[in-house]
Amino acid sequence: MIALGQNSYGKSRVRVMKVKRHPGHHDVRDWTVEILLEGDFQSCFTDGDNSRILPTDTMKNTVYSLARSSTAECMEEFGKELVAFLLQRNPQVSVARASISEKTWEHLSMHESTHPTTFVQLSGECQTAEVIANRSDAPTVRSGFENLVILKTAGSEFVGFIKDSLTTLPESTDRLFATAVKARWNYLSPTVPFGALRCKIRETLLRVFAAHKSKSVQHTLYAMGEGVLADVREIADIELTMPNKHCLLVDLSRFGQDNPNEIFVPIDEPHGYIEAHLRRQD
Amino acid sequence: MIALGQNSYGKSRVRVMKVKRHPGHHDVRDWTVEILLEGDFQSCFTDGDNSRILPTDTMKNTVYSLARSSTAECMEEFGKELVAFLLQRNPQVSVARASISEKTWEHLSMHESTHPTTFVQLSGECQTAEVIANRSDAPTVRSGFENLVILKTAGSEFVGFIKDSLTTLPESTDRLFATAVKARWNYLSPTVPFGALRCKIRETLLRVFAAHKSKSVQHTLYAMGEGVLADVREIADIELTMPNKHCLLVDLSRFGQDNPNEIFVPIDEPHGYIEAHLRRQD
Amino acid sequence: MIALGQNSYGKSRVRVMKVKRHPGHHDVRDWTVEILLEGDFQSCFTDGDNSRILPTDTMKNTVYSLARSSTAECMEEFGKELVAFLLQRNPQVSVARASISEKTWEHLSMHESTHPTTFVQLSGECQTAEVIANRSDAPTVRSGFENLVILKTAGSEFVGFIKDSLTTLPESTDRLFATAVKARWNYLSPTVPFGALRCKIRETLLRVFAAHKSKSVQHTLYAMGEGVLADVREIADIELTMPNKHCLLVDLSRFGQDNPNEIFVPIDEPHGYIEAHLRRQD
Amino acid sequence: MIALGQNSYGKSRVRVMKVKRHPGHHDVRDWTVEILLEGDFQSCFTDGDNSRILPTDTMKNTVYSLARSSTAECMEEFGKELVAFLLQRNPQVSVARASISEKTWEHLSMHESTHPTTFVQLSGECQTAEVIANRSDAPTVRSGFENLVILKTAGSEFVGFIKDSLTTLPESTDRLFATAVKARWNYLSPTVPFGALRCKIRETLLRVFAAHKSKSVQHTLYAMGEGVLADVREIADIELTMPNKHCLLVDLSRFGQDNPNEIFVPIDEPHGYIEAHLRRQD
Repeated sequence: MIALGQNSYGKSRVRVMKVKRHPGHHDVRDWTVEILLEGDFQSCFTDGDNSRILPTDTMKNTVYSLARSSTAECMEEFGKELVAFLLQRNPQVSVARASISEKTWEHLSMHESTHPTTFVQLSGECQTAEVIANRSDAPTVRSGFENLVILKTAGSEFVGFIKDSLTTLPESTDRLFATAVKARWNYLSPTVPFGALRCKIRETLLRVFAAHKSKSVQHTLYAMGEGVLADVREIADIELTMPNKHCLLVDLSRFGQDNPNEIFVPIDEPHGYIEAHLRRQD
Repeated sequence: MIALGQNSYGKSRVRVMKVKRHPGHHDVRDWTVEILLEGDFQSCFTDGDNSRILPTDTMKNTVYSLARSSTAECMEEFGKELVAFLLQRNPQVSVARASISEKTWEHLSMHESTHPTTFVQLSGECQTAEVIANRSDAPTVRSGFENLVILKTAGSEFVGFIKDSLTTLPESTDRLFATAVKARWNYLSPTVPFGALRCKIRETLLRVFAAHKSKSVQHTLYAMGEGVLADVREIADIELTMPNKHCLLVDLSRFGQDNPNEIFVPIDEPHGYIEAHLRRQD
Repeated sequence: MIALGQNSYGKSRVRVMKVKRHPGHHDVRDWTVEILLEGDFQSCFTDGDNSRILPTDTMKNTVYSLARSSTAECMEEFGKELVAFLLQRNPQVSVARASISEKTWEHLSMHESTHPTTFVQLSGECQTAEVIANRSDAPTVRSGFENLVILKTAGSEFVGFIKDSLTTLPESTDRLFATAVKARWNYLSPTVPFGALRCKIRETLLRVFAAHKSKSVQHTLYAMGEGVLADVREIADIELTMPNKHCLLVDLSRFGQDNPNEIFVPIDEPHGYIEAHLRRQD
Repeated sequence: MIALGQNSYGKSRVRVMKVKRHPGHHDVRDWTVEILLEGDFQSCFTDGDNSRILPTDTMKNTVYSLARSSTAECMEEFGKELVAFLLQRNPQVSVARASISEKTWEHLSMHESTHPTTFVQLSGECQTAEVIANRSDAPTVRSGFENLVILKTAGSEFVGFIKDSLTTLPESTDRLFATAVKARWNYLSPTVPFGALRCKIRETLLRVFAAHKSKSVQHTLYAMGEGVLADVREIADIELTMPNKHCLLVDLSRFGQDNPNEIFVPIDEPHGYIEAHLRRQD
């Protein structure tokens, strides 16, 4: 006998751009949305019965239609509207999940002002939000970002680690520390000023990264998470992923040259990988 | 107070290629390995104490060294050796995980034979294996593949779904069905002929996909998983992810032409997303 | 004074899939088309005069419409129709260029047959064609492919090269030779059996690569091109690009192990780069 | 008979990061270098004679070694040193080409200051330089950038274009204009303040893009290039590539909603493509 276990379906990579035309200036939101539903879909899988299936094409249309009617200013608020809308209209759905990522468009800077209707995209970093709702509880909101690429050229060492027969890494009291931070955090309440908290969290992470006397990626990751939980009382936890994007010191002695920690080769692979979850404890 | 929750660290994207030089022909294994460890690393995070830290650079060396001494013929066996080796030498580690993906190199086909030392890479599809071990239980082995890109041009319909005020999708009794299958399965025992089962599973999935009278992606996904669980008694479950890679019928009536299900526009975004877990039930 | 120099415009990444429904089986063509036009467009640039501008959206529609009416069996024939159509309807255009790449869908292999309406995509390699036409000459047709990833584990050496103060590479009489071949060739006539010649050229390149006693990438590249020009009289020249995708031998002596040319680390960067143009000479 | 035509070889994707440790702050240069050589290499291709071949591995070492000894502050100066070094030591080389791209690391902004040794990478845009040298002339230096992603939400129309039987695009007097600018320019002299000119050119392009009353991509591209040639007397020409990254207005009337130019779907494919070369004319 076969049992259908955990399953979900939905629409991925629904792109939508909203241009708010204020007097004197415009604002732009550029979002990529994923909707996933769980519910009573057994007969669709086993019998090809589509009578409870909301087509994923309709989910796409829902994003467009709601983007027009919504007054949400941020991804988290839009995500809350989206999952509530889907649950309300689809009794067969037990859990609705919206994952949104944002490409940030900033007004073009001109000398001492910014241009009201011209925008530049800072494309490396990506802001994210996830809203999950069922029929009984308040929705959970999880915000974050990905690919914040940062580098410390001072204040980073790595010594005192295990040496065994397979060790070739030398100790270093002054190494480069490059990473691409991914962060996710949950709020203690679903009604907080998401945008302002996002800025504060990002700023704290950067501030601690810059100031920390790092003994390892783990050591700095923990200090960054600890700093955020201390500064931002509105969040319950934070999960940080920080690959160690190695920069290898080049051996120039082969060419009769010294290399006083100046010439490095950054490599993409292999890379170290460190992730940890920090939570507030009562 | 802050608590350190779930955490792990390790090395990603360790590439290793092994050339086995048999008399008369060679064989090639081209693997990308990720190692992740869990254990008692609290003091590293909170105090910068590296005395229990096996450097990720050493993990990389471990892959190279073990690749030489190992006689493993497949990723699963190599993964089992790797996690056993790491657990045995590192008492502070409680869980070791190895994730391996393989790029397949096939001997070049020449008329009626194959060339013994020349290889071609079929790069789209990727074979995967994951081995997780702790100190008390047998290791769990999970195999799979990603990006098996397939298409049915007959035997696929989608009708009878929910229509509401946001529906624009027409019903179709003859649509294209394109997807990129991702599969993962667990074995009932960690000592099975992994390679042979992998082939059988892949073949069954393709056979069912081809023969199925599809009423939806869900319907076909379920039939594929059911077929595998029926054919391959050695596995406990299978998880299938099958995005619906839409091919849109072009409206040529604007140009005075008909389009008898012949001209389509494949799109990458948005795409449908369907995933389900099927397990053997007693 | 400013002069407008070389310029062109058009549409990129126009995807179109054509399903030919023969009795008993289907065929699929999956093409991505780029159209670029040159002509008398000065006033558009300097004055914003769009009266001679065929919108790129219309070019996209042209691809769809022509895909329906065309009986072309291969990219080269479709490309010829496309540029002829554009030149004929747009007197302001002096040169039209169509670049097409194909994703190959093969009928699914089942034991001793193939399935008539189920397809598998071999996604790594990409077939290409380029057709350029003006108002006076026959169109030029240039075919090719990209990303044919191949590897020789025997018959490759690299010795006798220049040694200077910056040399660290050791000579090798038995190295791995991995590359991703890109090829382009021009025909002596625009009316040849493109598909059959493409197969023959690809086969010859692989055959020579396999058999060659390689003294360098250059040496093998030349032999491959020479082989094609000898075998395929219908082409005028061939241009080959063959990056040297290095596989580094791992030094295992640090761990008390030997490495008899068995364990390698493939790297993506840096990589060698070799390109050459071979032409038939009278 | 076969003739060897145009050919070149070298090393691609040589990454090097240089950390300049000034008192009180550091600076970082993060470059990816490609070196390509042309010269008398016929016998290597035809006979496997490597006696004139500088291994590409040595080219890689040259980048590292020169990065240490060089005092170049920008890619252009480093590229000039690199090609001069290669030509001087390798009489068999007739042309040496260095192509460099830079990932920009900016000092982390903190309230009213910047951190002296912590950096953030703005990863979307990429700065480029190309230096080509032979044995008789001054080297040519060509600078540029790629992937400057910008958007205008006002001041862009597209009307008055050709309408034919394949036209479906409506005219628009107020459309979004999104693009990813690629630019390349040549200098009138190889000894100019490259960094300062680069900033000025980028600023001018953005300023004109923002202010222009656009009648088409071509129209704005031309105005941008004209503006640069007027402002920056040190360059001879500029080549601009500006894809039209379409944002499609969503038809919400199907859902009983209006859409006053507010909700768009950005698409990656297909996209318009416009390129032009503007040069100073005497």
